[in-house]
Amino acid sequence: MKNRRIVLASRPRAEATLDNFRLEEVALPALQDGQVLVRNEFLSLDPYMRMRMNDVKSYAAPQALGEPMIGGTAGRVLESRSPRFSPGDAVVGMGGWQAFSVFDGGATGALRKVDAGRVPLSAYLGAVGMPGVTAWVGLQLIIEPKAGETLVVDAASGAVGSAVGQLAKARGCRVVGLAGGADKCQHVLRELGFDACIDYKQHRDFASLAAALDAAAPAGVDGLFENVGGLILDVVLSRMNAFGRIALCGMISGYDGAAIPLAEPRLLLTQRLKLQGFIVSEHMALWPQALAELGERVAAGQLKYRESVAPGLEAAPAAFLGLLKGQNFGKQLVALA
Amino acid sequence: MKNRRIVLASRPRAEATLDNFRLEEVALPALQDGQVLVRNEFLSLDPYMRMRMNDVKSYAAPQALGEPMIGGTAGRVLESRSPRFSPGDAVVGMGGWQAFSVFDGGATGALRKVDAGRVPLSAYLGAVGMPGVTAWVGLQLIIEPKAGETLVVDAASGAVGSAVGQLAKARGCRVVGLAGGADKCQHVLRELGFDACIDYKQHRDFASLAAALDAAAPAGVDGLFENVGGLILDVVLSRMNAFGRIALCGMISGYDGAAIPLAEPRLLLTQRLKLQGFIVSEHMALWPQALAELGERVAAGQLKYRESVAPGLEAAPAAFLGLLKGQNFGKQLVALA
Repeated sequence: MKNRRIVLASRPRAEATLDNFRLEEVALPALQDGQVLVRNEFLSLDPYMRMRMNDVKSYAAPQALGEPMIGGTAGRVLESRSPRFSPGDAVVGMGGWQAFSVFDGGATGALRKVDAGRVPLSAYLGAVGMPGVTAWVGLQLIIEPKAGETLVVDAASGAVGSAVGQLAKARGCRVVGLAGGADKCQHVLRELGFDACIDYKQHRDFASLAAALDAAAPAGVDGLFENVGGLILDVVLSRMNAFGRIALCGMISGYDGAAIPLAEPRLLLTQRLKLQGFIVSEHMALWPQALAELGERVAAGQLKYRESVAPGLEAAPAAFLGLLKGQNFGKQLVALA
Repeated sequence: MKNRRIVLASRPRAEATLDNFRLEEVALPALQDGQVLVRNEFLSLDPYMRMRMNDVKSYAAPQALGEPMIGGTAGRVLESRSPRFSPGDAVVGMGGWQAFSVFDGGATGALRKVDAGRVPLSAYLGAVGMPGVTAWVGLQLIIEPKAGETLVVDAASGAVGSAVGQLAKARGCRVVGLAGGADKCQHVLRELGFDACIDYKQHRDFASLAAALDAAAPAGVDGLFENVGGLILDVVLSRMNAFGRIALCGMISGYDGAAIPLAEPRLLLTQRLKLQGFIVSEHMALWPQALAELGERVAAGQLKYRESVAPGLEAAPAAFLGLLKGQNFGKQLVALA
């Protein structure tokens, strides 16, 4: 039986390009005792993958050249030599950019059964998966929002940002999103229920973006969930209230190479701010509590999400490059089966 | 009775100069009921005063023009119309840059009696005063040092830095200081007992300072007590271990005006660092515990400190400008009586 997969062919010099990826067809090895073969139905594309393509010091080892790109997948068990899984089980794991994946059925957490009746299978890669838990952990652990506070989140229509905003609204905050384009801002306001949304593409310099933020957050900013960095971070930092908290989840604006300085770090002192970087996989103790709330809210229709689904494995590289440029609208997935 | 005082005559355009200060002689008003007249013996000079001279958004209101410069003082009660104080009491308060100060004897904490037998009166402005508590709070509240970790502190021979390093040594850390000049580094190593000290004046660029830090902190840096900012912060940040903590206490390198960017904020994410700005006066609940440890250690000779004492009120402006350039050696005081 053949497998199709996309491997990292080369590391980006600056911006990632289609040349950095290669589609391969390889034979699937026979299953060993304890292993599980999964037919992947959905592949999750996420900004963190871009950082892994670089060979630099970071929280995770770089993605190896010639190996399948890392990635979360949702699918169904096709064949099992593990007592813990049966054919037909709906499962979620880090299957990578490939049609089929072989998992060790015994490794704790490597492959996880999910209830695909309660919420759609794809949602386990988004609102009820890693992005949703990322939103929950950054909010609860670092921002610790209090009712009445103003919270800003960028990449607000994305998988993480949309969950951050809706969870913060449920906690009584005023929530201001930033998103690229009128369509996304309309979605953030009307579907997701944010109090305000700034189209950052209409505000390309500090003064313009700051004026927009002043209008959207007249009482200043108490919490920032940061996915982007660069100009947006500089502007929001300048509007933070005393004792504000910044959950640093991503800096997608800087993933292509050159470091983007923070213009005025002095504000962290003068406003007594807390800024903390975090990685959701290092807070596994919080996942059950987070997934419980996220699952409840999605099942009850209180936590909305939107998906962009690219058709077929071969569409993954272009969809990923589009994601890095903000061309997706909602959680970016690839439909594999 | 006459008083002599130094007022803020004008705000600095960039670097502060002697012209920004003016010495005045004014009449002392008669004491009202509840008030206490103190003859100040020592005035404390501290970097935070420079920030107050600017008219910018910060944690405290700017120093008013034409009013006595703000500052901590230690002295003795000369006359009291408060039942809480008697002539001859050794006291500490925010008396400002002047020979005599009138305090409200009833206001909680405005004027504090101290035991000038146990530790010298001047130490209540340094190791057993605001600078010592600043060290204690940043260390205990934000850095939370664990035995075996490596901690870096800059301005290491100063009032705050010297206490940070000695407290961290007492908690089992490897402590690396940064100070300006061979004399200060010798003092930090031999008198204060740090494990290493880097003379930053010998390392004016990133590569050179980073190489020196690599030699002094071969296992990387787990905690940074930051008083300076700029190049030092950039270099130490690049050597932080995962889950490191940065207590942002001061950014003296940027007090003269132009903001100094942080070169690579991305490291805060990739190393999952926590950076937190703080002001010691906002953590009053911790003062008693901090002062108890600091007082014990000073009395027992376990917490050493050094003072630079400028002679007379008229010497205060020049001593203060020297402090901003690192020309002091240890806690900068002015002897007033």
